[in-house]
Formats: sequence, structure tokens, C-alpha cells
Amino acid sequence: MEKRTYIGDLSQHVGESVTIMGWVSVRRDQGKMVFFDFRDMTGSVQGVVLPKSAAIETAKDVRVESAVAVTGLVNKRPEKNVQEGKQNGDIELQIERVEVLGAAATLPFELGADLHLETHLDNLPLTLKTQRSRDIFHMQSSILDAYRTSLKLQGFTEFVAPALVGGDAEGGSAVFKVDYFNDKTAYLATSPQFYKQIMVGPFERAFTVAKIFRAERSATTRHLSEATCMDFEMGFIENEKEPMRVLEKTIKDTVKFVAEKHADIFERFHTSVPLVPDEIPILTLREAQDILGVPHEPDMEPENERQICEWSKKEKGSDFIFITRYPTKKRAFYTYEDPSESPYSRGFDLLFRGLEINSGAQRIHDHDTLVARMKERGFDPAKFVFYLQAFRYGMPPHGGSSTGLERFTARMLEIPNVKEATAFPRDMTRIDSRLSEAPEFES
Amino acid sequence: MEKRTYIGDLSQHVGESVTIMGWVSVRRDQGKMVFFDFRDMTGSVQGVVLPKSAAIETAKDVRVESAVAVTGLVNKRPEKNVQEGKQNGDIELQIERVEVLGAAATLPFELGADLHLETHLDNLPLTLKTQRSRDIFHMQSSILDAYRTSLKLQGFTEFVAPALVGGDAEGGSAVFKVDYFNDKTAYLATSPQFYKQIMVGPFERAFTVAKIFRAERSATTRHLSEATCMDFEMGFIENEKEPMRVLEKTIKDTVKFVAEKHADIFERFHTSVPLVPDEIPILTLREAQDILGVPHEPDMEPENERQICEWSKKEKGSDFIFITRYPTKKRAFYTYEDPSESPYSRGFDLLFRGLEINSGAQRIHDHDTLVARMKERGFDPAKFVFYLQAFRYGMPPHGGSSTGLERFTARMLEIPNVKEATAFPRDMTRIDSRLSEAPEFES
Repeated sequence: MEKRTYIGDLSQHVGESVTIMGWVSVRRDQGKMVFFDFRDMTGSVQGVVLPKSAAIETAKDVRVESAVAVTGLVNKRPEKNVQEGKQNGDIELQIERVEVLGAAATLPFELGADLHLETHLDNLPLTLKTQRSRDIFHMQSSILDAYRTSLKLQGFTEFVAPALVGGDAEGGSAVFKVDYFNDKTAYLATSPQFYKQIMVGPFERAFTVAKIFRAERSATTRHLSEATCMDFEMGFIENEKEPMRVLEKTIKDTVKFVAEKHADIFERFHTSVPLVPDEIPILTLREAQDILGVPHEPDMEPENERQICEWSKKEKGSDFIFITRYPTKKRAFYTYEDPSESPYSRGFDLLFRGLEINSGAQRIHDHDTLVARMKERGFDPAKFVFYLQAFRYGMPPHGGSSTGLERFTARMLEIPNVKEATAFPRDMTRIDSRLSEAPEFES
Repeated sequence: MEKRTYIGDLSQHVGESVTIMGWVSVRRDQGKMVFFDFRDMTGSVQGVVLPKSAAIETAKDVRVESAVAVTGLVNKRPEKNVQEGKQNGDIELQIERVEVLGAAATLPFELGADLHLETHLDNLPLTLKTQRSRDIFHMQSSILDAYRTSLKLQGFTEFVAPALVGGDAEGGSAVFKVDYFNDKTAYLATSPQFYKQIMVGPFERAFTVAKIFRAERSATTRHLSEATCMDFEMGFIENEKEPMRVLEKTIKDTVKFVAEKHADIFERFHTSVPLVPDEIPILTLREAQDILGVPHEPDMEPENERQICEWSKKEKGSDFIFITRYPTKKRAFYTYEDPSESPYSRGFDLLFRGLEINSGAQRIHDHDTLVARMKERGFDPAKFVFYLQAFRYGMPPHGGSSTGLERFTARMLEIPNVKEATAFPRDMTRIDSRLSEAPEFES
């Protein structure tokens, strides 16, 4: 096999014969000549097979999306054919040889065509290769990277939270059951909450990127059976403002990182870098409801979340807004309530472009208060005996928050359905293939 | 609440009154005076409550591991009391006030005592606070960080692999069943293998840090029901040597990173930074067996893995060694076999200080060969219809590998049982609490 030259390096090899490897993005057969666009992980380049090239027969057979090794001469393009501002817009590969490394069958649809979401998902091993999907998951990779980096710079230590748990961690949501050893039942975690609270003990500031699983019978544009959360928890806080400030910094760092790295992706998605002012605006739930002129319900409807985000963008120049002071009874049982602030909790949500992407709070740190709250909510403290140990051996005031990676990615690029921002989404009707249909094997 | 000063910054505040927050590591009551060691996430400091201090009553009551806020005067120690080379060894906090933020009950054992592993695991919310556990999980956090950073620098893009799958991905290992929606059964992934192969299409080089689940009835020092793998996969390779080189680079980068960052941890564990020569030695399985003078079995026994690692360290100055050319029939069905090399596969294992921590290979990239291999092994290709799409639409020659995070961490610090290198280990008998016993609630 010849030495490979990356497409991104071709401009340094003008006048040389090189071998590139990648996929056929485009093939245009013009009778005597065949034109190609090739891509690898470093970029794209155009190639041409001239009539007398030894490659002309292969070139006529090779199908789009085939994986190929292509040997050719790197030529400067004539001035009139130069495409300014485009990678390799001033060069062209004069193809001498095409070797098919992995042939593609005829595609079931044109790659990049506007597909029904279900068709897109049925064909992910193919459709993830589109520019759009590659953009989405490059963006997601950068969000993960920037989020973790920001937390590390803020003194947080990463840990690995478990996915298998011994009971429904938070009691509330529907939970998946797992057949465990010796006829025992295990469950899939609905949150790494208890574990990150425990990790405040060793690390004071801890974070995890963890899988969460929700067996809710919800079929909306924002629900998944399996999702990824970016969770942090920190000790020795005075109130919920401190985790809010950490989150604000993380959001700002992440937006700055993707703005610098992915200007081209924002452009291709016809959207702009999110607006994040120096201080993300904060409204109490009541204030938000008063602004919208809606009744003082204990929670916000999705429609109201969209409206208050529009208000925030227009009035405060922010695509993000914090909502605080939800009634304690509407929040998880471990949410802290200061007696002077009753019946409101020290919880908060962060909304981004119309959608809740993060939820957080100061938590109860006193053992007996926590046990009393469990009992109020009808939970049996005996089920939480492992977790409660953390509160018996010196738990400081603490709090944290959880950001949904797929939701954050989706709103970053204004993608309507969170499933498109999930590489391999699971929902009520799908695990890779649709569950309602028997898979059909095409050999 | 007073402004908090981190313990790591105290040396800049000599002569000032400050408030620190953290945990009581040590309390020594000397009658008239009480001495303390406090720790926060930035370090440790000694404090003293003098007889006439207003804090003397609280100081006599506060128990070890309580979370406290302590106000006091930062004093230079007299020359004779200076502890050279120790953080804050030249200062002492003269305590004026102790506020208990989270009281600790009397500990069931001294923190840091040599416990039976089961007792350690029963009490993780407490035992994770020991210096030993904090060291292990700081090390693990750094391994994760360095591993990902190295792969990113080598052109890999991170993606999120699913944990819920529609069938036993690899057919072989015992798999956990999940009650899914509408009476369907889902399974927990035993590997992100298929998904990372699919991601070669969009990214060419892809990696994921994923959870894997094994329902094997194994109770050894190296098995877990839930483990973390660091997986990568890369396209356009010639043979398995290329993923081996990527892995070698990743290992070297990781060892370099932890060597620089955690010299103190290696010291506390009475172990040394692993030896990694410029090129990690490679032996075929047969060569390894010949060196050990054992029969040519198709696989290696754990005892032989230990012996060949000793040989590698002694003869090659390497704590790591690659073993290649396992018989194809002993490797996963998708492992590539070149006809000229039959019956040996292009798979490899990486052993580290006596234990296999990584397994990898070149994979089959031809659709029909893959289907034929499935049938040979008794798998129904119809179950793999989603995965097989990747091979219908231009799959290049590719390969990769998978490193077990917990095993890597355990061998890095020469910890005998991988469970101690897992924050919240799950096995046949334990999910947090022991499964054989009904939890007992202490209020």
C-alpha cells in the first residue's frame, strides 16, 4: 500500500504524485471524463479522470460513498477554475489509479436529501455520514470537551457513576428493570444524583458525564429513553447561587469554545452563536409568570418556557435564562428549602432557546431533615441506607446541577428534535431498528 | 457566612484572620489545648485551639470527619516546629471559632484502617474519603483525561455509544436483559464495538468512553458486572499495527501525564511509574508460549500473563507487552483474518503488570465475509441488519481497541482487586449494599 497523504495536506504536494484515501462524496460522469469529490477526516478535494487515464474503467463503476484509495497528480487549477475560500479550491487531483477499498451498494436515497426523521434513523450507519450529521456530532464532541475542561479548571474532579442501581434512585420517574443475578432485580439509573453527592465527600467538587434512563411513556421532541447528562456537585456553598455561577461559567466557556471552533457549522445550520451576556438573567418563577401574564402555577408549561426565552433574548440579549424559586413540593425530595423561604425551594432551571437544558439546586445536607423529607414523600428510608451514610459522616451544605447533552446540542444548532442530536437514539418504538417490525435481512 | 479562604492559599495570609472550610481529618485532645488537621480540596493544614479560645467547647465536641467552617489566625510556626516539604508545614491556624456545618457520627472504624474489602465496599460513602481512595480516583480521573486528550490529538472524535441495545451485540458473553416498553426485551451493551465501527463512516477516527455490562457468573479480582471501557476505532489501516501504534502512543501519553501529576500518589502506594520503552515489545502468542515453555494452547492463562509480563519487565524494560496472532477461532466473529496468515487473526492484547487491560484487532470490512463469519459462528445475520448497513455503504479496512479503565487504574497503582479501582463496583453479590442481606435502617 502506498503512503497515504491526507487531503488536508494536499496543497503542500503540488506537482507530486500522491495517494489519498477516503470516501467518494460526488461522482459526475461527463462521458469522456469523470469528476469526483473525495473526502477524508481532514477535508475534501476534487479529482478528475482524464479520457486516457488507466483509471477510467474503474472510475465509471465506482459508486458514491465507496471507500477508495486514489493515486494521482496534484495539479494547480487554471486561474479561471480557482474556487476562492474553499479548501483545496486551487488544486485538483489528476487521477491515475482508483482502488476500491470498500464498495458501496447503490444508495437507497441521495445522501443529504431531506428525509423523514424515521427514515433518517432507520439508516443511521449511512445517514450519519452526511455533512449535517457529521456537523451535529462534531459539535456534540466539542460541547463535551469544553464542558469537562471548564469544570476541571473550576476545580472539579471527574468520576464514573454507575448505571446499574439497586432501586429507583429518585423514586419518581418510571424506571427500567434489569434481570440481575440470582433472581434479583436491578434498575437503570435515572440520575447520578446520589453518587455525585457522595463524591462531595472525597473531592468537594465532583463531576460525571453519565447515562440516565427513563421509562416514561413520552413521545415528544425532547424525550429519550437513554440520555447523557453532564452533572456536577460542589460542597461548602452558602446557597444555590454558587452552583448557578459555576454553571454560568461552564456555559460561557462552552459557547466560546464552539464559537471559535465551529463558525462553519453555525453557518451551515443557518443559526448564530448563542448570546450569553456576562451575567445570565435570573427570574423567579413568579416573576416569569407575571411577565408572561399567566397564572401562578407551580411549574412552567413548555410553551411558557419558549415565551420567556423569547423575552430574555429580546429584553436581556441572552439566549439563556435561569428560573428560580419553584415550589419545594414540585422538586426532587432532596432539594433544600430554607424555612425563611418556604414554600419555595433553592432549585433552579436553566432554559436555552426555549427548552430546559439544566436543572439544579442546593440540596438538603442534614441527615434527619433528609429522612423526614423521604417519609413525607412516601419513600422508605431503608431503601436509601447506602446513600444516607454520606449524611452521617460530615456532609457540608452542597449543591449542583445536571445538563442534558443531547438537549444542549439540539438547541445549540436549533435542531427541532433531540433525537437528531443523539447518535443512536432509543425511544418507545426504537432501538436502532424499529421495535414494531421484524428486521428484514438483505444479503 | 465569612469569605472562604482555601487551605492551599493560607501561606499568602500569614498574620491575617481567615475562615477555612473543610473536614476534620485528625483531632488530638491534649486536655487544655486541642489540635486539628483540616483538609479541603486544595490541601491540609494544622490548627490549634488554645485554652482561652472561645472555640474550646466546640473543639472538644466536634468529631473526626465533620464538615466545619473554622475561623482563625494564620501564624508562622516557630522554627523548631516547621515541617519541611509538607504543605503548610511552616504555618498553623490559631483557631478562634469552629462552626459545624455537617456533623459526623462516631465512625464505625478509624478512617484509613486496613479493612476487609467487603467492609470497605459496605461503607463507601465514608471510605471513599480516605487518602487511599482519593488517590485512586484522582489517578482514574487523570487517566481518563490523558487518554481522551491523546486520542483527540491523534485526530479522533468522541461520540456517545448507547448502553441499551436490541440484542447481544457480540453474541458470546452473558448479557443482562432489560424490560423495555410494550413487553419488548432490551439488553445492556457488552461492548460499544458495533457503534464505533459505524462511526468510522462519519469520522474515520472515533472514540468513546462507554459503559459495558457482563452478566458472567465470575467472582474474581478482575471482573465487574459494570465496567468502563475506553474504545477507539480507525479507518483506512493496512493491518493491526496501526491501531497498536495509536494505542502505544495513548499509553505513553497517559503514563507521562500521571507521572508528572501524581508522583506523590505513586509514592504513597509504594509503587513506581510504569516503564514504557519507546516501542512496547510485541510477541506472538506462540513466541510467548515458547519463552515460558508452556504448550501451544489457543489462549493464555492468567498465570502465564503474569509470567510473560515479568519477562517483559526484566528483559525489555517494559511494564507493557503486546501479544498478537491469537487463533481466529478464539477471537470475536468480526476479527480480520488474512488468508495468508490463517488460522491466526489480526487481533492483539495489551498486558500491563500481569493483566490484560486492552484487546484490539483489525476487523472484517467486507460485508459478505462478515455475514459468512456470522453464519459459521451460528449467529443469525438478520439480528445484525442495522449494523450490517455500515458494510453496505463503503466501509474501509479498519481496526481499533478497547481499554478497561478500572483494570488500567488498578495496575497503575498495583491494587490487587479491580473493585477497589471502581468508585461504585457492581458484582454478583453487590449493588452498593450486599444483595444477600436486607438493608437495615439506622435512623
